[in-house]
Order: sequence, then C-alpha cells, then structure tokens
Amino acid sequence: MHVVVNAATSADGKLSSRRREQIAISGEADFARVDRLRADSDAVVVGVGTVTADDPHLTVKDSALCEQRRERGDPAQPARVVVDSSGKTPVDAEILDDAATTYVCVSDRASRTRREKLAERATVVVAGEERVDLTAAFDELEADGCEQVMVEGGGELIFSLIEAGLVDELRVFVGPKLIGGRDAPTLADGEGFVADFPSLALESLERVDDGVLLRWVVED
Amino acid sequence: MHVVVNAATSADGKLSSRRREQIAISGEADFARVDRLRADSDAVVVGVGTVTADDPHLTVKDSALCEQRRERGDPAQPARVVVDSSGKTPVDAEILDDAATTYVCVSDRASRTRREKLAERATVVVAGEERVDLTAAFDELEADGCEQVMVEGGGELIFSLIEAGLVDELRVFVGPKLIGGRDAPTLADGEGFVADFPSLALESLERVDDGVLLRWVVED
Ligand SMILES: NC(=O)c1ccc[n+]([C@@H]2O[C@H](COP(=O)([O-])OP(=O)(O)OC[C@H]3O[C@@H](n4cnc5c(N)ncnc54)[C@H](OP(=O)(O)O)[C@@H]3O)[C@@H](O)[C@H]2O)c1
Ligand SMILES: NC(=O)c1ccc[n+]([C@@H]2O[C@H](COP(=O)([O-])OP(=O)(O)OC[C@H]3O[C@@H](n4cnc5c(N)ncnc54)[C@H](OP(=O)(O)O)[C@@H]3O)[C@@H](O)[C@H]2O)c1
Repeated sequence: MHVVVNAATSADGKLSSRRREQIAISGEADFARVDRLRADSDAVVVGVGTVTADDPHLTVKDSALCEQRRERGDPAQPARVVVDSSGKTPVDAEILDDAATTYVCVSDRASRTRREKLAERATVVVAGEERVDLTAAFDELEADGCEQVMVEGGGELIFSLIEAGLVDELRVFVGPKLIGGRDAPTLADGEGFVADFPSLALESLERVDDGVLLRWVVED
Repeated sequence: MHVVVNAATSADGKLSSRRREQIAISGEADFARVDRLRADSDAVVVGVGTVTADDPHLTVKDSALCEQRRERGDPAQPARVVVDSSGKTPVDAEILDDAATTYVCVSDRASRTRREKLAERATVVVAGEERVDLTAAFDELEADGCEQVMVEGGGELIFSLIEAGLVDELRVFVGPKLIGGRDAPTLADGEGFVADFPSLALESLERVDDGVLLRWVVED
C-alpha cells in the first residue's frame, strides 16, 4: 500500500481557522491537481472531524478522469473512507451517498445500533478498542484491493497516521493567506512528537496558483 | 519602518514541539542567511515567550558582518528588543548582556521594581495597559532610529504584529521534519483570524539546506 497525504494549508500551517469552517486556500490549478490525485487513488480517506466540519463528497469531479478509470477496469470513483471510532458519521453525510463505495472504520466503541445504521450505506470495518487502530484498518482496506491511498485530512488523523508509520508522502499546497490561531487545526495535530521527529525529504517544490506545492517523502 | 518576520518551521508549520524547547529545524546555509538578515537590521525583536523558552542572544555571529556594520557607521550589533508586558525577562537573560543595546517593551502591568531592575541593563519602553501596545512601541523604536526591523518570533508575537498591520514581509524556512501537536507553537498563534484573512504574495521560493525558503509579502 502507498499512502499519500494531501492538504492545503495557509502560510502559517493551518488547515482552517479556529472555527473549523472550510476555507478556500488553493485555486483552480490545485483543485485540478487534487482531482487527478483522487482519480489515481483506490481510496480517499478522511477523519470524522473533517466530515463533521466540511461534509465533503470526496468524489472525482472531472468526468473524463472517471471515464479513464472505467477504461482501465476500475470503478468510476475511488472508495471513500471515514475514520470514526464511535460511528457518529451522520447517515445523511455526503460521503455516504451512492456516488461511490464507502468504508466507515470504527472501533469497539461504536454501538451496535450505529454500526447497523452505517452498514446500510457503507462497509463497516471494526478495528481497535478506543480509537480506530489505523494499522489494522488499513490492512483491511489493502486486503480489499486499496493499493493507492490518498488521505485528505484533517490534522488529528494525519498525525496518527504518521505516528503509526503509515504515510509514504505528503503533498502540501501552501497558500497565500494567514489564518493564525493557537486553536486552529494544523497539518499535523494530535499529541505531537517531542523527540525523534519524523524526517522528510523534499522531493519537489513548484509554484501552483498563488502559492507553492511542496512534495515531501517520509524517510524511514 | 520596514518589518520582516523571520522564522523556521517544520513541514507542518510548528516553531517547536509542545514542550516549547528549541529544535534545530534549519541548517548551516539558513543560519548564515539569518545572520546576514540580522546584520542588515537595526533591531531584532522577540516576544518574552521566546526569551523564556530559548534564552536567545540575538547577536550577529559573523564578525565580518559586524565589521561591515561598523564601517557604514552603525553599531557593531543591531539592537535587541523584547516584548514583555509584565517585565518578567530575567535579569540574567542573554538578551540583557552588554553585547548590544537592548529595549524591553512593557505595559502598565510591569511593576516599578521590575522596570527599575530592567532599566539597569536596557531601555524600558512603556506602551499599552494590559499587553504591550505594539504600534506605540514600534513608533518609539522608529523614533530611536530603528528603520529595518527583524522579528524572530514566537507565534504569539507574530500574530499580534500581523493583526496590528505592522508586518511587511515574512521569510519562512520550512524544514524537513514533522513536529505535530495541537498545542505546539506555530508561525502565527494568538486568537487567530476567522474572516478577512490577511493576504500574501509569494515573492520567491528557493531550496535552502534540506528545506525551502518562502518569502511572502503582506498585501494591504
Ligand atoms: N485544508 C485542508 O486541506 C483540509 C483537509 C481536511 C480537513 N480540513 C479541516 O480540518 C479540520 C478537521 O480536522 P480534525 O483534525 O479536527 O479532524 P480529523 O483529523 O478529520 O478527524 C479526527 C477524528 O478522527 C477520529 N479518529 C478515530 N481514530 C483515530 C485515530 N486513530 N487517530 C486520530 N483520529 C482518530 C477521532 O474522532 P473519534 O474519536 O470521535 O473517532 C478524531 O477526533 C476542519 O476544520 C476541516 O475544515 C482541512
Ligand atoms: N523556530 C523558530 O524560528 C522560533 C523562533 C522563535 C521562537 N520559537 C519558539 O516559539 C516558542 C515561543 O513562542 P510563543 O508564541 O510562546 O512566545 P512569544 O511570541 O515569543 O512571546 C509571547 C509573549 O509576548 C508577550 N506579549 C506582550 N505583548 C504582546 C502582544 N501585544 N501580543 C503578543 N504577545 C505579547 C506575552 O506575554 P506577557 O503577557 O507576559 O507579556 C506573550 O505571551 C518557543 O517554543 C520557541 O522555541 C521558534
């Protein structure tokens, strides 16, 4: 499995403001890049915090890209995945519509009622006692054929994935805005590291829209 | 007055870990660049949070650069400035030694005792009731001949300066490390903006050491 984290941050590393509302950070060229990256993926993953905040659809928007997927024998849309310990994803969330296959990864904390409700619209993967055990959940996704995996946030999930050693690459669009805020979500939140900081290699840097796209490879 | 913020962040926008210990983010080429920027400045400013955390000296390290300053009629070292409402900068802080002129900007909250103690080693500027009134304090610095001002952090001070419209440029070295942590200091902390996000223009991007140097100009 190859896991790429993709996100857009402000120049000060924020994914959003302290209000956790969706903020337009990138522009058209970056949207098109993200759409292509989705189209090249078998699954697109987000945390439930992002579902609650943004209610994303997570589908490929360009129909030509969907057509290419079909031609190579893939479903028109990549699978969508929510990491959601208690299974609180609302049943009317965009991510649960029938535009693509969806997985909801829950932990033992998710009640039987929630699991049953979600199972009407998604494949429920149970992994972990309190929080979702990401290694186990990703193993199940891989067993189901997800080889190229894209993670679209947010910062809590990204931190846990890095901590678990599951991330191979980060692609960060850094946009021409300042958001600020000690409580605003950043690219990597969670507890944070205090030593042995994961080391990256800068693969490429490129102007995109009015910002810059940085591609980092996570070193072992 | 021309104000440049300079800082080094991890790839996820952090100035340090949640423990607020100094972390080596950049390398030799970036140290040399920062030293030249200091040498080109009339004053180098930090918040008291940075003094408490890192006890920085804030002097130009390269003696050739100091010599060039002398030759053009400037003092060998730029002035150092701490923004410190209550005047809690320890009297044995590196920034208060006699290597350079120092200003401590306090607010009305600083006791007479603290002001007197600090006045033995620095010029005390009083501005603001609760927190330091940065516009008034910077006006005093300008009246004292500080035209080129460099701000070296931390995130609380940087946010306030941006909010007050005092920042002209940001130079951010983004290094090849992940720090993570929802409580780790970032390039711009404070309350944060929730609308009308300050807009930047990307002046240049350049590989430096194993990271990238981004130069942003703050737009009006
Ligand atoms: N700019 C961008 O590119 C971008 C992209 C995405 C999101 N965002 C922004 O990011 C914010 C949301 O990010 P977020 O960090 O709050 O939420 P998030 O990372 O999307 O979701 C985090 C949640 O996932 C659940 N989870 C389950 N197992 C986990 C594990 N092992 N590790 C970590 N989390 C686990 C936890 O909730 P439970 O314990 O309840 O399961 C956790 O609170 C929003 O403001 C959104 O707008 C921005
Ligand atoms: N990587 C880098 O380039 C870099 C550079 C510098 C610092 N750092 C790191 O940043 C951390 C320190 O940053 P920080 O954000 O905690 O502290 P900071 O910005 O250095 O200092 C903030 C403090 O300044 C005082 N202050 C007075 N008037 C203010 C005003 N109007 N607005 C804002 N602050 C005002 C406040 O304390 P009072 O109310 O007590 O006055 C405030 O808590 C440390 O971990 C340090 O290692 C990293």
